[in-house]
Amino acid sequence: MFELRLVEGGLLKKILESLKDLVNDANFDCSATGFSLQAMDSSHVALVSFLLRAEGFDHYRCDRNLMMGINVANMAKMLKCASNDDIVTIKADDGTDTVTFMFESPSQDKIADFEMKLMDIDSEHLGIPETEYEAIVRMPSAEYARICRDLSAIGDTLVISVTKEGVRFSTRGDIGTANIVCRQNASLDKPEDATVIEMEKSVTQTFALRYMNSFAKATTLSNQVTISLSSELPVVVEYKIAEVGYLRFYLAPKIEEEEGMNTEMVTGPKTVEKRAKIKEEPIIIEESEFVEERKPKTETDGEESKPKIEINGEVDGTMAIKPESEANGEAEAEVIMDVE
Amino acid sequence: MFELRLVEGGLLKKILESLKDLVNDANFDCSATGFSLQAMDSSHVALVSFLLRAEGFDHYRCDRNLMMGINVANMAKMLKCASNDDIVTIKADDGTDTVTFMFESPSQDKIADFEMKLMDIDSEHLGIPETEYEAIVRMPSAEYARICRDLSAIGDTLVISVTKEGVRFSTRGDIGTANIVCRQNASLDKPEDATVIEMEKSVTQTFALRYMNSFAKATTLSNQVTISLSSELPVVVEYKIAEVGYLRFYLAPKIEEEEGMNTEMVTGPKTVEKRAKIKEEPIIIEESEFVEERKPKTETDGEESKPKIEINGEVDGTMAIKPESEANGEAEAEVIMDVE
Amino acid sequence: MFELRLVEGGLLKKILESLKDLVNDANFDCSATGFSLQAMDSSHVALVSFLLRAEGFDHYRCDRNLMMGINVANMAKMLKCASNDDIVTIKADDGTDTVTFMFESPSQDKIADFEMKLMDIDSEHLGIPETEYEAIVRMPSAEYARICRDLSAIGDTLVISVTKEGVRFSTRGDIGTANIVCRQNASLDKPEDATVIEMEKSVTQTFALRYMNSFAKATTLSNQVTISLSSELPVVVEYKIAEVGYLRFYLAPKIEEEEGMNTEMVTGPKTVEKRAKIKEEPIIIEESEFVEERKPKTETDGEESKPKIEINGEVDGTMAIKPESEANGEAEAEVIMDVE
Repeated sequence: MFELRLVEGGLLKKILESLKDLVNDANFDCSATGFSLQAMDSSHVALVSFLLRAEGFDHYRCDRNLMMGINVANMAKMLKCASNDDIVTIKADDGTDTVTFMFESPSQDKIADFEMKLMDIDSEHLGIPETEYEAIVRMPSAEYARICRDLSAIGDTLVISVTKEGVRFSTRGDIGTANIVCRQNASLDKPEDATVIEMEKSVTQTFALRYMNSFAKATTLSNQVTISLSSELPVVVEYKIAEVGYLRFYLAPKIEEEEGMNTEMVTGPKTVEKRAKIKEEPIIIEESEFVEERKPKTETDGEESKPKIEINGEVDGTMAIKPESEANGEAEAEVIMDVE
Repeated sequence: MFELRLVEGGLLKKILESLKDLVNDANFDCSATGFSLQAMDSSHVALVSFLLRAEGFDHYRCDRNLMMGINVANMAKMLKCASNDDIVTIKADDGTDTVTFMFESPSQDKIADFEMKLMDIDSEHLGIPETEYEAIVRMPSAEYARICRDLSAIGDTLVISVTKEGVRFSTRGDIGTANIVCRQNASLDKPEDATVIEMEKSVTQTFALRYMNSFAKATTLSNQVTISLSSELPVVVEYKIAEVGYLRFYLAPKIEEEEGMNTEMVTGPKTVEKRAKIKEEPIIIEESEFVEERKPKTETDGEESKPKIEINGEVDGTMAIKPESEANGEAEAEVIMDVE
Repeated sequence: MFELRLVEGGLLKKILESLKDLVNDANFDCSATGFSLQAMDSSHVALVSFLLRAEGFDHYRCDRNLMMGINVANMAKMLKCASNDDIVTIKADDGTDTVTFMFESPSQDKIADFEMKLMDIDSEHLGIPETEYEAIVRMPSAEYARICRDLSAIGDTLVISVTKEGVRFSTRGDIGTANIVCRQNASLDKPEDATVIEMEKSVTQTFALRYMNSFAKATTLSNQVTISLSSELPVVVEYKIAEVGYLRFYLAPKIEEEEGMNTEMVTGPKTVEKRAKIKEEPIIIEESEFVEERKPKTETDGEESKPKIEINGEVDGTMAIKPESEANGEAEAEVIMDVE
């Protein structure tokens, strides 16, 4: 049996709202560690991942590992019926193919339960390697969302450049060019308004604005967003979910024409072929570039918190993915985010 | 001459906004008793009825009974031009075929008058029988509106079940099932937040959600909504209009397949034929099932408050309609609503 | 070099928002006097003109007269990226064909610069004659916007009648007629709520509501709007921009059929021909009816504030345009607006 209960149930609603335009069907992982998801977006360009830690819930019980195949839009529809201050319970009995969502009003006068069929989804769990990022920007999430929205009116791509002085967001379109610079300012009364930059060396990368805008739907989850960049690595846009976990978006950089040589090295000929078909699109993150970790449905076999050792597949220098345990990965992720 | 004046003119505006998507053309009845309307929705499935009592107005004069044939959408357009705090006057001179709406700002600095042509509409006044309902639920109107809206995302039908513990709203759709239970809670500080259930026996009925959603547009009229149910009778969704009157919506229940035998008894073969054509629709309320009370236009012949005795037509057990006088009917309606 | 800086940068944003649906491409005039624009709307029915005086800016420098050909929608897109409390700088170097917009957040933590290509636009500067208007109405701009919006639901034309008692806005459509009267009320606590009428004689004119609605987008610029009317002259709808300047819209009256004889006199046969093609449209303001003041691009020749003497073209009784100097014109406009 799997059951989680979150008094601040609006959080789950907001997570699903952030995901629903990006991901169609996905497997939600229930384990002793927590409730999590990892999924490619429907055009296989971006990767979404969230983790809500077991100890972050008001009640959490997971007798055996469980993978729930869910249509994200449908789950979002159901969670949308919860009020923001409702207590949300998610429940799945062993051996059934349904999941139940329960919403209780704070006064207990209104109680709703929604039942949804689970699906069998053929997916691979991708090991995401822990990486030391060359530059990490932490800034107000609303500011970041506004910048992405504003620049979308001018162009299609977002160039992010990080230097010690600040972070520059640029675009270029038919009507002209735009540059927005946010300066580092750590010493503020309100920590949620701070812009903090941690960097080893300056980085400049180009992304598809459309995806950045899509990620920014998670702005409701957190006052701050963390953007982690390394040259030739996918950017990580992370929204911390207070006390409970995080929601992360990964997006591969666009490779400029003049960097054609690099492209070959980075993504290999297969990817280049794909790019030829999908014009003006960011590089496709080949799933094979992440470490595949096939999780057969029968794997839900009772071992409680056994760290998952992932088979290290065809790792290359950029999208390389190291063996990880989830608990471990989470701890390391913390480190990345707390550098200040 | 007919003239009414309402300081809280926003009320009329809200009533028209509630009606305009449901009713196309309708006869508005002006009599010594008050200003009222009764109309089938354009697909003849639901019945709308409002009454604003003469004594509820700041000024009310009706020299002789008058029936104003009006396009509801056009009247709504005109009333929309009133500010919520405007004083609204409706005026129709004898022998003219126009009606005038006048809006005065509280400061009298802005005065608007709108004139609209009246139409000849061929309609019957249906006698709605006074009934003892098996279950009456009074609950916050915003809560009810939210439930209808939420469940619309999941399915097309609304099952309402009333028991002593509470009222359950359910639906079922391709993506799953949903149940929302509101518990009785009469002892609240804020009476407008109370949910009160009066019942003789438990009732379960199924309705088309689309209509329920449409009715919920009247939420702006009142903090509370009253839902009156009896098995095999149309539900009544009533919004009281403070000090002045009420707005009521009637909707026939959908008859489930397994209740086929009952259907025959209740609605007769004619209705069943109609159902065959309009798949997935609620039972058509046959106008003939209500008592027809033909009101020729020439009826506006000066008798001031003569109670209307309705000819009792083809009454059957369910939609049966008794002779009524309007004043009388209103008084009895009060009884229904005040049971607590 | 041209550079202006406005601490209350939201003003520029609001001006562009007011213009963008009306004007496609236009020449922005930069001179020692100030920053201004004059343009016909894309269907050549209305004329828009704004002036922001040099002394109204926090910084203003114009080494030589400059005409910047700009696509208004694109400039609006860029200015929309400014926050309402941003400091806005507009800059154009001599000899370049680009203009730069800079937005600084009050805290200086976020600095954006947008660059846009200038265009060569073939336009004539129309001399707008100073006129003594027969009736001038000053009223709350939000009230005026609401009236235009409300009446648009009923009809297509707006009849404005000014008498000593007040100003009447009327329309007529398929569904009926509407009249809204606003009474003069000068003696209010809040001057921004006043309605003040200055008149020599009563005036009644008819306009296309569509344009009036479009003008009302400038409501955000000022609490009050001034409507100046003379029989057979275009109406002027003016929004003062506090301390800095004004935004004015000119619209020619519609000539009613029964005034056919007058039409001939006023607009000449050419216009009548045009009207035949564009049914139900207001009279086209022939550009030739305004005094053409061709401004070749080479005119930006350093003379700082030389008053522009306009060649008096084919002036007729109505759209007649007298020679004007800009500084002069502005001063006289002031007079019109301050009559109280």
